Amino acid sequence: MKRYKLVVAYDGSKYCGWQIQPNGITIEEVLNQTLSELMQQPIKVQGASRTDAGVHALGNVAIFDGVTTIPGSRIAYALNQKLPDDIVVMKSEEVPRDWHPRFCQSIKTYEYSIKNAKLPDPTKRYTHLLMSYDLDIEKMKETAKYFVGEHDFANFCRTKGDVKSTIRTIYQLDLAQHQDVITVRVRGNGFLYNMVRMIVGALLLVGRGEYSPEQVKDMLDFPGKEVAKITAPAHGLTLVSIEYLDTLSGDSQ
Amino acid sequence: MKRYKLVVAYDGSKYCGWQIQPNGITIEEVLNQTLSELMQQPIKVQGASRTDAGVHALGNVAIFDGVTTIPGSRIAYALNQKLPDDIVVMKSEEVPRDWHPRFCQSIKTYEYSIKNAKLPDPTKRYTHLLMSYDLDIEKMKETAKYFVGEHDFANFCRTKGDVKSTIRTIYQLDLAQHQDVITVRVRGNGFLYNMVRMIVGALLLVGRGEYSPEQVKDMLDFPGKEVAKITAPAHGLTLVSIEYLDTLSGDSQ
Repeated sequence: MKRYKLVVAYDGSKYCGWQIQPNGITIEEVLNQTLSELMQQPIKVQGASRTDAGVHALGNVAIFDGVTTIPGSRIAYALNQKLPDDIVVMKSEEVPRDWHPRFCQSIKTYEYSIKNAKLPDPTKRYTHLLMSYDLDIEKMKETAKYFVGEHDFANFCRTKGDVKSTIRTIYQLDLAQHQDVITVRVRGNGFLYNMVRMIVGALLLVGRGEYSPEQVKDMLDFPGKEVAKITAPAHGLTLVSIEYLDTLSGDSQ
Repeated sequence: MKRYKLVVAYDGSKYCGWQIQPNGITIEEVLNQTLSELMQQPIKVQGASRTDAGVHALGNVAIFDGVTTIPGSRIAYALNQKLPDDIVVMKSEEVPRDWHPRFCQSIKTYEYSIKNAKLPDPTKRYTHLLMSYDLDIEKMKETAKYFVGEHDFANFCRTKGDVKSTIRTIYQLDLAQHQDVITVRVRGNGFLYNMVRMIVGALLLVGRGEYSPEQVKDMLDFPGKEVAKITAPAHGLTLVSIEYLDTLSGDSQ
């Protein structure tokens, strides 16, 4: 029995998110079925990030344990022959038996895409939030700066009571505008449930002039304060990558 | 009875192209059905560009004749309430009774999107051609210049025997690279059947080193010569806009 790591990209539009659930098909389920068929044994993956329904990924990470003669690096190719075309395994490799993608230090990068126009571009309807209000990009950029660093993100998450701490560090939060598309790119050492979507929600409230940048700063500085907040819709979000800080082999030492 | 012009955007992924045909649903058919339902009378649109199956549009143009109390500029809004979410009417307006989108001088702009990477991005699978070979962008840009101007494009179309002349003028042909996405943008006074896709095909052959820029120049300079050519797949192509040179009201003078 060996452990393998997969880097997984998917268009999340037609899935009920990553995690197996009774109400619909999920990424985890499709990977389990496809791997079990390929390896002729029951396989269960464990994912690094249990993305919500509609959220996309270019580099989510999963592991599984199994017995196979396929070299670790070739599993991706074999899997891609069987997977539907909205899920692609970008990379596969053998990792130490005790390496786990959720319990190793990592840096995650997310992107949130906004189409800022009066009418939707139908080719972007599953990947971009349509925002028809005029947005003050400069004020949004000013606000973005406040998020960088270590903060208590209690006002920017929906805790399910299962987190020990709501303190996280954001290394980078950039807004880029290209024609009528705004891309928010955020890089950090960990993200609470719905955190990226609530940060984007706050940025949009500032962009529309409903909050000042200082009010958002207050939401960070006074995490106990009750404030109105919005969560940007799932379909604009993409998990771009997860970088692991320890070398993989170092974990088993 | 009045004539109305529509500017139509669509994700062409699930359609058998613009033009009505027996084998599957088309954009034209959906517009006819939706307009007929909205106006309570049989309506038939006529499109400026009969895009192929899988081709997208941000600004195709159509006209129809009908009797309605809805102001011309409000038809778009009314239609969008009934259309599926992969077709959006961007604009509507009344035009002179003899104005026709195919018989007026116009400038069309197309974009062709290429994802140049070893593995596909599943969120781009319906809008970008995946090209896993290394591409020589500089050589492609050099080749692009040869297309600009008036040329006989006999080697860059599939004529169906119904065109009087294969001479067309290209005003602009730009290649832009952003990370691993290459966008070819072409603007001209008219395009023959499959012309953009065959120009992109030639650029890709140069990018892969199979043709030299000079060989492509020869294909333009000697339109009668038999040469091997490829047509880039439909799904990378988007009809961006159609600009009409005459003012609309001028046409009826």
